[in-house]
Amino acid sequence: MTYCLGILTRFGLVIAADSRTNAGVDHISTYQKLFDFSVPGERTILLCTSGNLSITQGAIAALEKDIKHKEEINLHTLPSLAEVARYIGNKIRGIQEQDRPFLERDRIDFKCSILLGGQVMGEEPNLYLIYSQGNFIHATKETPFLQIGETKYGKPLLDRTLTANTPLEAAAKCALLSIDSTMKSNISVGPPIDIVMYHTDSFTIRHRLRLRLGDPYLAKIRKLWEIYVKQAFDEMPEVEWEYDEDDFKEDILID
Amino acid sequence: MTYCLGILTRFGLVIAADSRTNAGVDHISTYQKLFDFSVPGERTILLCTSGNLSITQGAIAALEKDIKHKEEINLHTLPSLAEVARYIGNKIRGIQEQDRPFLERDRIDFKCSILLGGQVMGEEPNLYLIYSQGNFIHATKETPFLQIGETKYGKPLLDRTLTANTPLEAAAKCALLSIDSTMKSNISVGPPIDIVMYHTDSFTIRHRLRLRLGDPYLAKIRKLWEIYVKQAFDEMPEVEWEYDEDDFKEDILID
Repeated sequence: MTYCLGILTRFGLVIAADSRTNAGVDHISTYQKLFDFSVPGERTILLCTSGNLSITQGAIAALEKDIKHKEEINLHTLPSLAEVARYIGNKIRGIQEQDRPFLERDRIDFKCSILLGGQVMGEEPNLYLIYSQGNFIHATKETPFLQIGETKYGKPLLDRTLTANTPLEAAAKCALLSIDSTMKSNISVGPPIDIVMYHTDSFTIRHRLRLRLGDPYLAKIRKLWEIYVKQAFDEMPEVEWEYDEDDFKEDILID
Repeated sequence: MTYCLGILTRFGLVIAADSRTNAGVDHISTYQKLFDFSVPGERTILLCTSGNLSITQGAIAALEKDIKHKEEINLHTLPSLAEVARYIGNKIRGIQEQDRPFLERDRIDFKCSILLGGQVMGEEPNLYLIYSQGNFIHATKETPFLQIGETKYGKPLLDRTLTANTPLEAAAKCALLSIDSTMKSNISVGPPIDIVMYHTDSFTIRHRLRLRLGDPYLAKIRKLWEIYVKQAFDEMPEVEWEYDEDDFKEDILID
């Protein structure tokens, strides 16, 4: 499994992904799932992939090939991020069309999804989730984050801390903690974690980080977060029962 | 959807459930999912159900009928909780056997699962998860909680706060917060919330609570938890980027 998320605030973008992939218990490997197709100074294009690895690797290879062969339409020529999303969606459709009958008859999941975050000169930054079927949605002010893969464990923290006005540094911290929560609750999501932070209109990736297994910073934030959550939990008021032991004894006495 | 959880610590049991059920967007209703089949002074038997409502209601009705008709084997006569689990598993199998072909051909999910927590005189308390297929597992010291239904959103908090030595009042608080986290992140889980706390060897349910929509205690714990989690989040150290803006500027200067 995989967990990737993108956050779009009015200050820019944060994109983060784990790097574990598994096809059964005894086949757990590490693959990069965050890809940077930016042209510094011109456009920022960041992708995260989840789902069937042969399909997503095929899609990434096709995107790279179009750039290398200077095809008329490629990630570096399309005039808007929405058109980039549609182009990527069509790539997924094409690859799935080839492989789907062979995978489907052996009941192999051929689904995949892609997060696309970035900014094309002349536009605001944006964040898209491209579905396995090639259609896509984008983040909004009300829902400033999008997730793919193993999304549920890490969602409560995002729901409680993120808005469209969250500063980028806080959004990045939130993304790391969301991935860490997922890793703790689900063994199929694991390090290295890749994270990138992009400031609106900078057209340059100035903040990136790869956190490997056993990385002291990763260990530190996990330990601290456990301590802080435990403290928060301890400070919460006890359950106010409808009747407690004393009421119950009174009931007995009355009876 | 549903979210139910049971917690087994060395002090006793906590069982909690939401009450929302849905079969499509326009058909969201409320049904009780926590059932108390205890015989005060003799045995404590608590059940939570999740999955296809016609199957789980059928199973609960069948369990009630066996007690009412004083069948030789029923929830009040079986000599151990493990045998109770097997008996409930067989009930599920029986009802599914009747309905499965009709549901399956219309692609209606006929699956269900049941949490069974309790104590039969002469035994320690125990907690079982009975699968749709009728087989079951029980909680252990290493994994003191079991969940059914929409389990992922509420799991990180349990993973971080619960052990077999957690006091019951803290376990109850944790169960409520786990359900509240799930409700916040997933609209298909909703109040009323039923929660029961059982002290080992008491053979009486002295603590129970039903939290309805808009209940002031529910609103209070949600608000406080949001504040505390936000505080914990703010106290966390910022991300330690591999290179920051200043390094980047130096890079440019060197180039």
